[in-house]
Amino acid sequence: MDLAFTPEQQMIADVIDAFAREVLLPRYAHWDRTGNLPEEQFARMGEIGLLGLRVPEAFGGQDVDAVTAGLAIEAAARGDFNCCYAILIACFAGEILGRHGDDAVKAEWLPGMASGEKIICTCLTEPQGGSDAAGIRTRAVRQGDDYVISGEKASITLVMAGHAGIVFAKTDPAAGAKGVTAFLVPFDLPGVSRAPYADLGSRGIARGSLFFDEVRIPARYRIGAEGAAFSKVMHTFDYTRALIGLMCLGAAQQSLAETVEYLKSRQSFGQPLPRYQGVSFPVAEWAAKIEMARWLCLRTLWLRDQNLPHTAEAAMCKMQCPDIAVGAIHECLLLHGHYGYTQDFPHEQRLRDVIGQQIADGTTQIQKLIVARELFGRDFV
Amino acid sequence: MDLAFTPEQQMIADVIDAFAREVLLPRYAHWDRTGNLPEEQFARMGEIGLLGLRVPEAFGGQDVDAVTAGLAIEAAARGDFNCCYAILIACFAGEILGRHGDDAVKAEWLPGMASGEKIICTCLTEPQGGSDAAGIRTRAVRQGDDYVISGEKASITLVMAGHAGIVFAKTDPAAGAKGVTAFLVPFDLPGVSRAPYADLGSRGIARGSLFFDEVRIPARYRIGAEGAAFSKVMHTFDYTRALIGLMCLGAAQQSLAETVEYLKSRQSFGQPLPRYQGVSFPVAEWAAKIEMARWLCLRTLWLRDQNLPHTAEAAMCKMQCPDIAVGAIHECLLLHGHYGYTQDFPHEQRLRDVIGQQIADGTTQIQKLIVARELFGRDFV
Amino acid sequence: MDLAFTPEQQMIADVIDAFAREVLLPRYAHWDRTGNLPEEQFARMGEIGLLGLRVPEAFGGQDVDAVTAGLAIEAAARGDFNCCYAILIACFAGEILGRHGDDAVKAEWLPGMASGEKIICTCLTEPQGGSDAAGIRTRAVRQGDDYVISGEKASITLVMAGHAGIVFAKTDPAAGAKGVTAFLVPFDLPGVSRAPYADLGSRGIARGSLFFDEVRIPARYRIGAEGAAFSKVMHTFDYTRALIGLMCLGAAQQSLAETVEYLKSRQSFGQPLPRYQGVSFPVAEWAAKIEMARWLCLRTLWLRDQNLPHTAEAAMCKMQCPDIAVGAIHECLLLHGHYGYTQDFPHEQRLRDVIGQQIADGTTQIQKLIVARELFGRDFV
Amino acid sequence: MDLAFTPEQQMIADVIDAFAREVLLPRYAHWDRTGNLPEEQFARMGEIGLLGLRVPEAFGGQDVDAVTAGLAIEAAARGDFNCCYAILIACFAGEILGRHGDDAVKAEWLPGMASGEKIICTCLTEPQGGSDAAGIRTRAVRQGDDYVISGEKASITLVMAGHAGIVFAKTDPAAGAKGVTAFLVPFDLPGVSRAPYADLGSRGIARGSLFFDEVRIPARYRIGAEGAAFSKVMHTFDYTRALIGLMCLGAAQQSLAETVEYLKSRQSFGQPLPRYQGVSFPVAEWAAKIEMARWLCLRTLWLRDQNLPHTAEAAMCKMQCPDIAVGAIHECLLLHGHYGYTQDFPHEQRLRDVIGQQIADGTTQIQKLIVARELFGRDFV
Repeated sequence: MDLAFTPEQQMIADVIDAFAREVLLPRYAHWDRTGNLPEEQFARMGEIGLLGLRVPEAFGGQDVDAVTAGLAIEAAARGDFNCCYAILIACFAGEILGRHGDDAVKAEWLPGMASGEKIICTCLTEPQGGSDAAGIRTRAVRQGDDYVISGEKASITLVMAGHAGIVFAKTDPAAGAKGVTAFLVPFDLPGVSRAPYADLGSRGIARGSLFFDEVRIPARYRIGAEGAAFSKVMHTFDYTRALIGLMCLGAAQQSLAETVEYLKSRQSFGQPLPRYQGVSFPVAEWAAKIEMARWLCLRTLWLRDQNLPHTAEAAMCKMQCPDIAVGAIHECLLLHGHYGYTQDFPHEQRLRDVIGQQIADGTTQIQKLIVARELFGRDFV
Repeated sequence: MDLAFTPEQQMIADVIDAFAREVLLPRYAHWDRTGNLPEEQFARMGEIGLLGLRVPEAFGGQDVDAVTAGLAIEAAARGDFNCCYAILIACFAGEILGRHGDDAVKAEWLPGMASGEKIICTCLTEPQGGSDAAGIRTRAVRQGDDYVISGEKASITLVMAGHAGIVFAKTDPAAGAKGVTAFLVPFDLPGVSRAPYADLGSRGIARGSLFFDEVRIPARYRIGAEGAAFSKVMHTFDYTRALIGLMCLGAAQQSLAETVEYLKSRQSFGQPLPRYQGVSFPVAEWAAKIEMARWLCLRTLWLRDQNLPHTAEAAMCKMQCPDIAVGAIHECLLLHGHYGYTQDFPHEQRLRDVIGQQIADGTTQIQKLIVARELFGRDFV
Repeated sequence: MDLAFTPEQQMIADVIDAFAREVLLPRYAHWDRTGNLPEEQFARMGEIGLLGLRVPEAFGGQDVDAVTAGLAIEAAARGDFNCCYAILIACFAGEILGRHGDDAVKAEWLPGMASGEKIICTCLTEPQGGSDAAGIRTRAVRQGDDYVISGEKASITLVMAGHAGIVFAKTDPAAGAKGVTAFLVPFDLPGVSRAPYADLGSRGIARGSLFFDEVRIPARYRIGAEGAAFSKVMHTFDYTRALIGLMCLGAAQQSLAETVEYLKSRQSFGQPLPRYQGVSFPVAEWAAKIEMARWLCLRTLWLRDQNLPHTAEAAMCKMQCPDIAVGAIHECLLLHGHYGYTQDFPHEQRLRDVIGQQIADGTTQIQKLIVARELFGRDFV
Repeated sequence: MDLAFTPEQQMIADVIDAFAREVLLPRYAHWDRTGNLPEEQFARMGEIGLLGLRVPEAFGGQDVDAVTAGLAIEAAARGDFNCCYAILIACFAGEILGRHGDDAVKAEWLPGMASGEKIICTCLTEPQGGSDAAGIRTRAVRQGDDYVISGEKASITLVMAGHAGIVFAKTDPAAGAKGVTAFLVPFDLPGVSRAPYADLGSRGIARGSLFFDEVRIPARYRIGAEGAAFSKVMHTFDYTRALIGLMCLGAAQQSLAETVEYLKSRQSFGQPLPRYQGVSFPVAEWAAKIEMARWLCLRTLWLRDQNLPHTAEAAMCKMQCPDIAVGAIHECLLLHGHYGYTQDFPHEQRLRDVIGQQIADGTTQIQKLIVARELFGRDFV
C-alpha cells in the first residue's frame, strides 16, 4: 500500500498548480464580468496538456491514468473553476471516443480537442427528466449510410462555444435504456441550433439548449454499437463524478487558503481574528471535510484505474463533494464580513459557480438513489 | 393569551400581501438585471404606508406597533426582498429620529421619508471592525452652533440613493461607547462623498462607502444628547433584528410556495415529483423551520411592544432566520434541477439577495456572543 | 394579540416548576437506577393536579386549556421527563374518554386516574407497522352485550403498571381506517397478558407488549360509535404531539441551565470555560433552537384551543422538538467533558430517556409525510 | 500509488473480521448487561495477536505497521467496540514502552500484555483540565534510585482491571510541558488506589480515577529521559487518534450493515421499507460519510508509517469519526422504530459506547484547536 503520488503525478500536479496560480486565477473574474468565452485560456490549457488528459497519445493526448487526471483538475480548479468544465468534457469525450470511436473520426476530432481548438460537448440531458436515460426522446434513424437525428437536449455546458457533441439518442425506442446509442454530431451541420441560458454562475462558458431538426450524419459518427451507449455512458459518468468531486474541492481549497490569509490580517477588539474560536473553528471543520472528501475521490479514481467496481464510490463523490465545497466557500464568504459580499473577493463568484455542480450530472437525490441501490440491492430500492 | 393577529394587523398584512404580489413581485428581477434603483416602487410603497410604519402620525407616518411592522415587512419580502431594505432603514430612522430628534428636523425629513421621496440611511459600520461600536473612529467636533464631522463609513445600504444618513460619530473619543453621538447628516452637504460596491446581490439598492471630509451641520441635527447614541442604537437594533428575521423568512416562504407548485407540475419515472420522499421531505423540513423561526420573531416584536427585555431574543432572530432562509431558498433552487440555476426562476436571485442579511447588522458570531452574554453573564463571556 | 400567559397559566407553570424542582428532580435518577415504578410520584402528581389536566371537572379533573397543559408538562419535564408520560397518557385518556366515553365508565375510571391511583395506557401501535392505523389487526367482535377482543399491541408505555388501556381495534376489518373502534379495556380481565421491554431509557415506567386473548368487555366500554375511533385518535394525536414537543424541550432546558452553571464553575488554561467561543457558542445555538421550537408548540396548542386546524403544526412539533432536545442534551453531556459521560450528571439519563420520543407516536418520517401532505395535497404525496 | 492493502494486511483484516463475528460479537451485549470485565475475550485477543500489534517481536508482539493496526482495530470493533480499548491502550503502551523503555521492564511487562494477561493503562488526564498537559499536577520526585509519585489521575479506561499504567508526572514543576516525564507504575504497589465510575456505556471495561499516595518505583521504570514525555505522548496520540477513528467507524459499519438487512425484512403499506427514500437516503448518506472518514484515517496511519507529519490529519480523524459514527448509529437505532430503542438490538449499546469516544483523548474542541493551529500558525490561534 502506497498513498504517495508517483513522481510523475506529483510533477503534473505541481505544474498545473503553478499554471493555475499564474495563468488561470488572475483572469478568473474577468470571464464572469464580461461573460466572454475564455478561449485564450483553452488554448493555453491545450498547450500544457490539460485538454488531452484522457486522449490516446496517438491522437495528440497524454492518456494519463484517472488519478493523475483527478490531481490535474483539482489543481486547475484552484485557478479557474469554470475552465475545468473544458477539462471535464474533454475527459468524457476523450475516453468515450478514444475507446469506442471510429479511427477516422478520432483523427478528425481528438487532436483539435486536445490542443484546445475544438470543444466537444456532452449531450445527454433532455428537458423532461434530467437523469432518466431510459426516457431519452431524441431519435436517431438509420437511412442508408447515414443517421438522421431529431430532438432536444438541455443543460449542455459550453454549448454555444462547442464544435460538436457526444449525443445520446434512441435508435430503438422500444428497448428502453438498451436502445440508446451515442453519436458524434458536429454543430455546424444543417438542422443544429442552440440557445444559451442566463445562469447564476459559470457565465463565460454558457450552458444552453441544443435542437436537432433532422440532422444527417454519416454512420461512422456512431460511437460503439447500436444500443451500447447506456452502459458506456454510465460507466464514464462513474469516472467523471470523481473528477467533479476534485474540481469542486479544488475551488474550496483555494477559498479556504485565501480566507486563512485574510483572517490573519484582520483584528477585532485588539486580537487577531483567528484567535476567536467562533472564527477559526469553522475553518478547521471545513478543512477536515475537504480532506476526507478528497481521499474518497482519489480512491474512486484509483479503483477505476484498476478496473474495479466504483459505482457507489463515484456516486458518493458526487453526493458529498459539491455540497462540501459550496458549504466551505459560503463560510469563507461570510468570514470576510461585509467585504465577502462584494466582487472584490472571489468567494461570491466561486459560490455561484460551484452551485452549478450541485445539480449537473445527477442531483444529490440521484446519487443517493444509486448508493441505496448498491447497499440494498435493486429489488429493494 | 391570544395568538391571533388583531383585525387591523390582519388587514394590513393582507393589503401588503396583495401589493407584494401585484406590484413588487413582477418587477423583482428587473432591478437586479438593470441595477437600477427601484424608485418608482419606493413611491408606491410610500403611498401604501410601508415607509412610515414607525414614523409618528404627526409627521406623516402610521406609527404601528412592532408586531404589525413585522407582518408588513414579511409580506412585502414575498414580493421584493430588496425593497424591504427601504422599509427597514425607514423603521430605524423613524424610530430613532421620531423619538429623539429635534422637531424642526423631524418636520423637515420624516414626511418625505414616509412618502418615499427621501431615503435616510443607517450609517454605523466602519471599515475596520464591523460591530465594535466603541471603536468608532468618525469624529464630530462642536464648533459654535455647528458640528464638524470627519471619517468614513462602510457597508451602507442604499448609500448612493440616500438623501441623508443617521451617522454615529464620537464626540468624546476618550469615553468609549459612551462617547458616541448620533446625527442626521444630509448627503448634499460639502464634504460628503460616496462610492458604491459591486455586490453579489441586492444590486438595485447599491451598498457602498461614505466619506465625511469636515462636513459642517447645525447642532439641531444632533439626535439626542451627546454620548447617548450607543444605548439607543443598540436598543433599536434589537428591534430591527426581528424585522430582518421576518424579511428573510418572507422571501423563503415565497420560494417555498413557488417550489411546491413547481414540483406538483413535474414528473419523474411516471410519478409526480413530490411522491419521492427525497424531494418532498426537505420541503417539509424547511417549512417547519420557517414556521418555528417566524414565531420567535413575532414574539420578539411583541416583547418590544410591551417594553419587555428582548436583547437575547432579537439576537436569536438574527442568528437563525437568515441562515434558515438561505438554506430553504438554496434547497428550492436545487429542487428545480437544471432550471433552478437559471434566471428564469427567482430562486438564484433570492439566494444572492438574502445572503446579504447573513452578514449585515452583525454577523452570526456577533449574535451568538450576545446570546452567550445573556446566558452566562458578561463576567463569563 | 397577546403573547403573555394569563395569570392562571403563569401561576400553574410556577407551581409545577417548584414541584418539579423540589419533588421530581431529586428522584429522577432513582427510578432509572432501580427500574422501579415512580408510584409515589404519581400520587403526588395526582394531588397537585397534573394527572387530571384534561379531565372534566365533574370527574375530578382540572379541565385546563391545551396551552396550560403544555406549560404544565414543560415545567414538569424539567424535573422528571419519565413521569411526564403519565401526564401525557392521562391527557390522552382524559380527552378521549371525557369527550366520548360512557358516563358510568367515566365515573369509574377518571377520578382515579386524575388522583394518580389508576393508569390508563394508550394502546394503538401493533408489532407490524407502527403508524399504519388502517392496518390494525386487533379484532373486536360484538357478542350480545359484550365485545370480545383479540390481538397484540406493541410499544405500550407504562404497560406493566397500567390498570386499563384505551385500545384501538377493528370492528369492521373490511373498512380500513373507518373500521377502527376504541375501547377501554381493564387489564385485570381474563385473557389480558403483558411483557415488558428492556429499553435504553425510561426504565421506571417500563414499555412493553400487550396481548388480548378473547378478552370480554361490556359494550359500554366502547368509546364513541363503532368505526369512529380513527379520526378521533388522529385528532387527539395532533394535540399530544405538541405536548410531547414541550415535554422534550423542558428536559433540554433543564440540561442547558445546569450546563450553564457548570461551565461557569470550570476553567481551562486560566480562563472560565464560557470565554471559549467553541464552548459558549453551541450553548447559544441550542438555546435559540429551543426557544424557536417552544413557540411553535405553544402556538399549536393555542390553535387547538381555538378549534382551528393544526395537523401540520402538530407534526412539525413532533418532527423538530425531540431532535432538538436530543441534540441539545447530547451537547450538554459533551460539554461536561469526562464527567458528562458518568451517571454523576443527569445528562446521560436525559439523553437515553428523550431518545424514546424520537420514535414514539410516529417517527420523524411519518411527521414529514404528514407535513408534506398538507403542503402538496394528498394527491401528490 | 497503490491503494490496495498488501496481502498480509488483507489477510489480517480478514482473520480479525471472522474473529469479530464469531468470538466478539456474540458476547458484546453480555459484558454490558453484567458489567463484567471481558477477561476471557482479552485472552483470545492475545492469542490471535490483537494485543501485541505494536509490540516489538522480541517481546512477544507482531510489530505491524500503523495501517495494519488500523485495519485490525476497525475489524475488531465490528464485533466488540469495548474490547478495542484493550487494543488501543496496548498500542499506546507497546509503542511508548517498546521504543523508550528499559529492556528489563519491557521483558517484564510486554509479553504479558501481548498475550492478554496484563493490562497497561494510559494515565494522562487529571481532574482539573482534561487536555492541558502542561498543567499536570501529579509529581514524581527522585529519591536515590527511586521515584516517589503522588497525585490523582482521572478518566482512566480499564483502570480497575489494569495491572500497571503509563503515568505522566511532573519531574520539574517549573518547566511546564517540558517538565513532564513518563513512568510505568504497577498498580499493586503500596499507595496506589482506584475508584470506578458509573458510566453511560463501556461498562465491562470500567473507567475510573487513580490515586498515587507516595508510590515508590525504581528509576528504571522511568520511560525515556526526564522531561521528554510530553513530545512523545503527543506524538503517540497523533497515532492513536487515527486508531480511535477506525474503531468508531468499525462499530458504525456494523450497525449500518445490520440495519440494511433489517430494513430489507420489513414492509410498510405493502412496500419494502428501503423503497421509501425517507428511509434509504439517510442510510446512503451515512455510508458515504463513513467511507470518506475511513480513508482519512488510513491515510493518517500511512503518513505515520512514513514518518511524515500527521498532527493535523490525526486531529481531523478524532474530530470527525466519533461524531460520524455516533450519528450513523443513532440513525440506525431510529430506523429500527420501536424496536431500536430496546436492548434486543445492539444499536442502543453501540450508541452509549461510542459516545465515550466523542470525549476521550481530547474533545472535539481540542481537535479543532489543533487543526486551527496547523492552519493559521500558533501565533494566530
